Amino acid sequence: MKFGGTSVADIARIRVVAQHVKREVDAGHEVAVVVSAMSGKTNELVAWTRDASPMHDAREYDAVVASGEQVTAGLLAIALQHIGIDARSWQGWQIPIRTDNAHGAARITDIDGSELVRRFGLGQVAVIAGFQGLGPDNRIATLGRGGSDTSAVAIAAAVKADRCDIYTDVDGVYTTDPRIEPKARRLNRISFEEMLEMASLGAKVLQVRSVELAMVHKVRTFVRSSFEDPHAPGMGDFDNPPGTLICDEDEIVEQQVVTGIAYAKDEAQISLRRVSDRPGVAAGIFMPLAEANINVDMIVQNISEDGSRTDMTFTVPAGDLDKARLVLDQIQKDVGIDVVQSEGNMAKISVIGIGMRSHAGVAASAFKALADRGINIRAITTSEIKISILIDAAYTELAVRTLHSVYGLDKH
Amino acid sequence: MKFGGTSVADIARIRVVAQHVKREVDAGHEVAVVVSAMSGKTNELVAWTRDASPMHDAREYDAVVASGEQVTAGLLAIALQHIGIDARSWQGWQIPIRTDNAHGAARITDIDGSELVRRFGLGQVAVIAGFQGLGPDNRIATLGRGGSDTSAVAIAAAVKADRCDIYTDVDGVYTTDPRIEPKARRLNRISFEEMLEMASLGAKVLQVRSVELAMVHKVRTFVRSSFEDPHAPGMGDFDNPPGTLICDEDEIVEQQVVTGIAYAKDEAQISLRRVSDRPGVAAGIFMPLAEANINVDMIVQNISEDGSRTDMTFTVPAGDLDKARLVLDQIQKDVGIDVVQSEGNMAKISVIGIGMRSHAGVAASAFKALADRGINIRAITTSEIKISILIDAAYTELAVRTLHSVYGLDKH
Repeated sequence: MKFGGTSVADIARIRVVAQHVKREVDAGHEVAVVVSAMSGKTNELVAWTRDASPMHDAREYDAVVASGEQVTAGLLAIALQHIGIDARSWQGWQIPIRTDNAHGAARITDIDGSELVRRFGLGQVAVIAGFQGLGPDNRIATLGRGGSDTSAVAIAAAVKADRCDIYTDVDGVYTTDPRIEPKARRLNRISFEEMLEMASLGAKVLQVRSVELAMVHKVRTFVRSSFEDPHAPGMGDFDNPPGTLICDEDEIVEQQVVTGIAYAKDEAQISLRRVSDRPGVAAGIFMPLAEANINVDMIVQNISEDGSRTDMTFTVPAGDLDKARLVLDQIQKDVGIDVVQSEGNMAKISVIGIGMRSHAGVAASAFKALADRGINIRAITTSEIKISILIDAAYTELAVRTLHSVYGLDKH
Repeated sequence: MKFGGTSVADIARIRVVAQHVKREVDAGHEVAVVVSAMSGKTNELVAWTRDASPMHDAREYDAVVASGEQVTAGLLAIALQHIGIDARSWQGWQIPIRTDNAHGAARITDIDGSELVRRFGLGQVAVIAGFQGLGPDNRIATLGRGGSDTSAVAIAAAVKADRCDIYTDVDGVYTTDPRIEPKARRLNRISFEEMLEMASLGAKVLQVRSVELAMVHKVRTFVRSSFEDPHAPGMGDFDNPPGTLICDEDEIVEQQVVTGIAYAKDEAQISLRRVSDRPGVAAGIFMPLAEANINVDMIVQNISEDGSRTDMTFTVPAGDLDKARLVLDQIQKDVGIDVVQSEGNMAKISVIGIGMRSHAGVAASAFKALADRGINIRAITTSEIKISILIDAAYTELAVRTLHSVYGLDKH
């Protein structure tokens, strides 16, 4: 069971979490709980490190910031003991959760779950501080923002859990953002691959890395709400509680063609006109951008008319546009780019579904529906299970609603 | 160097602390710094543990509360690096500082200072989270409130430091409380034994345990202000900076007869009248009080007139008076106490000085001076270096000023 920052925002909320845990313990389950820092705490700690020095040592940042989860873990253990549940808190270094040395954005390398499992056998609940582990330098290493999801999935894999339940402030994964399309429906199941696309596209239910990890280790992951009454009907139904199961596609019997519509605003488009079309030119453009830490997303390159010059379009986060233009100005002559054009205020709309692998015409329906609404498509990229379309950001909501309806996602 | 909560209250104050450290490093000293939690943080954390459960697990309390010092240690390391000082933070479990298993009020059993010393040789400053260590159960153990002073002295002993400088919100130890007697003077030196009496009597400059530890390990301890300009004239004078040195009495060349006047308000007096005077009667009274966790202080017993009945007077903290009366009610018949009398609103005034060992008449001058002012003495206890007098609390200030003047402490 994993509880995020808003779920443990204060002692009253931590007591509710304890009731969720009690429900599972009473049902006879062995439970490990991973917790985030109380909401707002991590931001406070991060601000202090920045205030102390803008160029702070990542190892010290980790020592400071990891304390937030340590506090929540201790408080939840106390709250559990208070209602008669045997529990103890664990910090990353105590288990230990081993990580690599990339302080501030470390990756988990190994978890020894044996002591946790032994104590499950004695009826003890493990309350684990998320977001952290022990680096090879014997110092605390944090996993990067949102890393508690990753902690939870990794612990679930280490103790061979039946399931990893992620309790959050939403009650599952929806076909699209319900704030944009009120007819959006909660999915009962979604495959790891689809969730990965949803997660990386602004459906901020789960951290992308945690989904990757769940996919690799086949950890069945369940997204559910911590804000419902812990003892409401159905909440204790282990096999079919309210929420969304992220699982292997084999477990999804009746696969829909399209599972969901995701979107990402704040994109910027850059077009390079009449670029010298020779081997290595793409590397000559994208290496300098990567070195400047600019995350390039959609890349579209047309075949050149005469084999000597080509056009190239790609997207970057809108906040990185100025930096990207500076990089391109520097390399423009050497690489041989005639003109650099750019535009902010773009949005990327994505149609996601494992079923589209075996269904033709999925992309064509999207293009037609958008055209019917007068929405201009700036660029298109596709993968096996995803079609992404770049449009003016002003049309985001209209496009999401249109596509949600085209693929019948608003019908029960 | 040790900095308490008000000295590290925010990032601006932590930057000032970094300047104090820089001054010592620049002067060629090898430095370990022990820090408390930012002021208010420990109270916040303690309140949360109480809110989660009034009967909380002390091990979980420790995990929660120790985080405050970890945060400060990381932030100070960052602030030091920012001004070009090589520094790293250490948590209790990393050094490790080993403690016993008394979570919440643990005692340090062992410190391995070798890695700290090795790094001093490389020019690195150690920034150490105070108030905590690692228990035999491999969990964080805290030393009890104010334990950072104890951490500092213990670290100083472990690395064989020349001196332990305690930076606090006062600039030294005074002959008495300057809020009561404006003529109070800062002492240049005070012996461990005298400081122990001063510390345990409400002169809350240093935690009592830290002074005991300093005495046992002969750690020369220096009390000084963190609120002065770190680079003001004299602050960098290693042998004679502004403040008070707590040291072996051998180091104090010209010993005063009386060093200081301490006081403790909020005392309550209990008198037991006509108690059966037989062997074991004192144990029969004070064991039950101790078991009820009541801290009995002054004890006065008169020789009985006829050898069968005696009077006994002692003091307890005013807040424990009701609890003490309950205990006494229960044992009154069995022990054979005729009457139990009690009175709150008492104050204990103490005259402290190693010099009184070799000077007669010190006590007599006190009694006469108080009598001249019309202050009634309720009870008297004496030790080799201390005379304690119990009076009505209303006379506290008058008594302190009178005694301060009698022993010439207000003269330079």
